[in-house]
Parts: sequence; C-alpha cells; structure tokens
Amino acid sequence: MVPTLTILCPGLLGGSVARAARERKAAGRIVIWARRPETRAALARQSWCDTVAETPEAAVAGADLVVIASPVDSILPLLRQIAPSLRSGAVVTDVGSAKGRIAREGHEVLGTRAHFVGSHPMAGSEKTGWENASPGLFERRTCFVTPLPATDPGALAAVTDFWRQLGGTVASVEPGRHDEIVAHISHLPQVLASSLCAFLAGKDPAWRNYAGGGLRDTTRIAGSDPELWRTILEQNRDEVLRALQGLGAEIKAFETALERRDWAAVTARIAEGKKYRDGFPTP
Amino acid sequence: MVPTLTILCPGLLGGSVARAARERKAAGRIVIWARRPETRAALARQSWCDTVAETPEAAVAGADLVVIASPVDSILPLLRQIAPSLRSGAVVTDVGSAKGRIAREGHEVLGTRAHFVGSHPMAGSEKTGWENASPGLFERRTCFVTPLPATDPGALAAVTDFWRQLGGTVASVEPGRHDEIVAHISHLPQVLASSLCAFLAGKDPAWRNYAGGGLRDTTRIAGSDPELWRTILEQNRDEVLRALQGLGAEIKAFETALERRDWAAVTARIAEGKKYRDGFPTP
Repeated sequence: MVPTLTILCPGLLGGSVARAARERKAAGRIVIWARRPETRAALARQSWCDTVAETPEAAVAGADLVVIASPVDSILPLLRQIAPSLRSGAVVTDVGSAKGRIAREGHEVLGTRAHFVGSHPMAGSEKTGWENASPGLFERRTCFVTPLPATDPGALAAVTDFWRQLGGTVASVEPGRHDEIVAHISHLPQVLASSLCAFLAGKDPAWRNYAGGGLRDTTRIAGSDPELWRTILEQNRDEVLRALQGLGAEIKAFETALERRDWAAVTARIAEGKKYRDGFPTP
Repeated sequence: MVPTLTILCPGLLGGSVARAARERKAAGRIVIWARRPETRAALARQSWCDTVAETPEAAVAGADLVVIASPVDSILPLLRQIAPSLRSGAVVTDVGSAKGRIAREGHEVLGTRAHFVGSHPMAGSEKTGWENASPGLFERRTCFVTPLPATDPGALAAVTDFWRQLGGTVASVEPGRHDEIVAHISHLPQVLASSLCAFLAGKDPAWRNYAGGGLRDTTRIAGSDPELWRTILEQNRDEVLRALQGLGAEIKAFETALERRDWAAVTARIAEGKKYRDGFPTP
C-alpha cells in the first residue's frame, strides 16, 4: 500500500486512479490538486479524495507516489514545478500517451533524489473528465511502464506494483519502443476514425442514420476530445507519421487490387486482416 | 401477414428473417431451401422452418413472398432459376449489399407476372451462418428497399410492410443512390478495418495484446468473412473506389498537417470528425 498518493490534474484517468486505489486499498491517504478552483471544490466532496491541496507543491509535499494525470503537454512543466517540493525517495509517474521525451526529461529533472518512471495505462475512453472516472477502468488493461537503463529499480517496482494493484496488466518497454507501439495500436486508429468521420461529414450527414453497427464501432473513438489528441499527436508526431505512411501503402494496394479487379488479391488482404483480428485476446 | 414465405439460402440474414417472421407472426408457413443437403437436414429440425424443399423451384412454387438470402453473386442466377416456378403475383426480394445491377436485372428477369423489389437490411455482423441468426436482428435497423420507377406499387408496399413487421426502419432509395450510400457507410469502413488489420499483421502481432477498446472496436468488422466481402466489393467496385479515393485525400490532408506541424489544422480535422460522430443517433 502507498501511504500517501498524490494525483495532479485528475481527469478520466486520474480520477479512475484515485477511485481504483481507494476501492482496492492500494493507497492510504489520497491528496489531489486540480488547476481550477471550482474543480478543487467539487473534488473535496468526493469520498475518494482525502485532501485537496491549493498548489501542486503543497499536494506533493508528503507524497510517496505522485501520479501526474494532466494532458501530455503539461506533464514536464508540472514535474519541473513540483521537483523541489518532493520528499527524498518519492516516486513520480504519469499517464501520458507518448513516452520518449517525457521519460528522458522526467529522469533528468528529478535526478536521483526522487525518481521518475513513465507510465501509460491503455484505458482511455471517448468520455473525459473525473466525473466519468471508474474504479474498474484499469482491470485487465495493459499499463505500460517505460523505464530507462538508469531508472531506480525500487521506483520501477513501486510503479509496477501500483498498476497491478489497480487491476492492470503491466508491460515494461523502452520509451521509444512504447511510442512506436502506441502509434500503431492507438494513435493510428484514432487518426483513421477521425478522418473517416471528417470525410463523411462532407457527404450527406443523414447517411449516418442508416448506418449499422459496423460504422458505429469503427468510428466510436472519433468522439474523443480534439485538444487532448492534438497534444498526443504533437508528442508522438514522428512515429504517427511513419505508421500513417505504412497504412497508406496498404490502403493503396487494396485500391489497386480493386481497380485491376484482382479479386484474389482483394480476398487475400481481407483474409489476412481477419486472421490478425481473430487472434485478438477475448476481452 | 404473408401466407407463405420462402427463404432461399439462409445464412445469418436469411435465418434471422425466418426467426423474426415466426416470432412476430409476419408469415404463416415458412419454406426454406439451402444448397447443401446437410444444411437442409439441420434446418428441418428448426421450429421456425415448416418445410424444407429439395430444390429452389419446389421451394418457391406456393410462395407469396420469396427472400433470396444468398451471397450477392448468386442472387441473379437463383432468380433466373426460380422465375418459371413463381406464382403469378408473387413478390421476390433479396438481402444483398449492392443493388444497382440486381434491381435492374431482377426486374427484367421477372417482368410483370411476378415482381422483384431489391432490399438490403443494414444488419450484418462479423458472425455468419444461420446458427447465429436472431429474431431481433432487424429491430430499429435500416432496411433499404430500392424500387425502380417501373416497380409495381403493390409489390413495393408488400416488401416495405414485411421489413417493418420484422422491426426494421425502411428507407426507400433509388438503387444507384443506395450503392453510393453503402459504399461510404458500410463498404468503406470494412476496407479500412481490413487494411488496418492487414497492416498491423505485418508488425509484431503481440502488439494486439496491449490494445485498448479503441483498436478493438475500430477493427471488429475485420473479422468478417473474406469471400462474402469479395462478392460485395465485386458488385459495388466503382462506388467503393470513389469512396476510397475521397477518404484517401482526407487522410493525406491529415498527414500533411502533421508533417507541417500545423496543429490548428490537425485539431480542426479531429473536431470536424467529432462533430459528425456526436450526431449519430443513440442506438
């Protein structure tokens, strides 16, 4: 159990960390700081929040584990702000969707007096905000932890244990490799769903009323928050571009097969996709 | 109520037509023909099947309404085969995903003694086969009917009423327009999901074990039957190619915005997709 857990900027993920930690007794005292005063006032009324701090510095002062749950572009600025207030040996992690720069600079900012270990639970939703937080959000979900060679083994173990206690399945991967993986399995599907919807928006919008479950499922994540995704794509631009170019070649090859009426090639591509999809673990 | 309903080649859709018609008392007697003798033997044991015929001709001889539920490339051959055996005034429809050629040639094959009215219920699934049929499959789902100017109004009314009795929401559109619509809202998402999976299959397949709900939902329909989709794409090749080219331009524009770090454009495209997706009717 983490004696004192601090969560900065709880949205869907940070709120779910707090609720899961309370329900699963993974933390003793839970301290929260949110940027807006009205959010702080609302959080003070939640059973999973023991203390609301007025500043990030005050929030982390007694913390054993700090989870920075802000959008990715605020993680490093917040880390720099709280660094002088951290106790010796405190561990800081985050929930950001891109890890290369954050893992490297996070380690540099804290040095060895306190420890930064990057995390990324694969448990987003098109819904946002702590109001939608759920104590079961991390159950059987992959939680990436992304240590560097220089990462303190004790800090890595603490973060790994924490996600396991919240129900997650921990995968430890190098930060650059993490960014390549999520560019393919998370950021690429997002760009695709958003692009499909943006394209269909230029057609007759009434067509969506005819749609079956296929279009509905394929586009669900297009309902996600644009500003949140801008910050993720900013951080992982290079890997997402590489993934998009690879997928573009695949789609182009499908189109060429259709143009040439090469039905064997069309069938083979659908069959290859089916084989891959059928191999998904049952949820 | 249809006194005698005949269903040829029941798979997921045809089986669901039979089960829904029985449960909702939309048909009196239900006669079925399937191509394989072992399927006919199994169907004879189902409560929603009153008679199994040995040939398509025998199956339709006493029918008031015939539903051809075969893959799209078998619909016209079957229609030609049964045409001489139909009673005067009998109505024939189908459940094929492409309608242009089928509606036109179907009308030509039957002339005016019996009547062909093309249908397409938007109620597929990645699951196939009559074993997965469900009496609720058409509830609140769009069922396209695609009359020609020359279509008999009584036959059109009979087919429209039938889908309504099965729980569907009927949309009557011109066959060519139907093909344009489904190319965008059904066939394009299928090509996209299949291409994404075929692309990811060429990466480390273990990555799929890390995936959250986003990739799972986005790719669900990639599990669909490749042969079935080949026949659909054969029939609707031109419209699907046009839709693919339109979407390709949209994805390329997204890629260009990422390349140029034009974050305003990236955010605007995601926001436009979100606005469209948020307008989906609640299921």
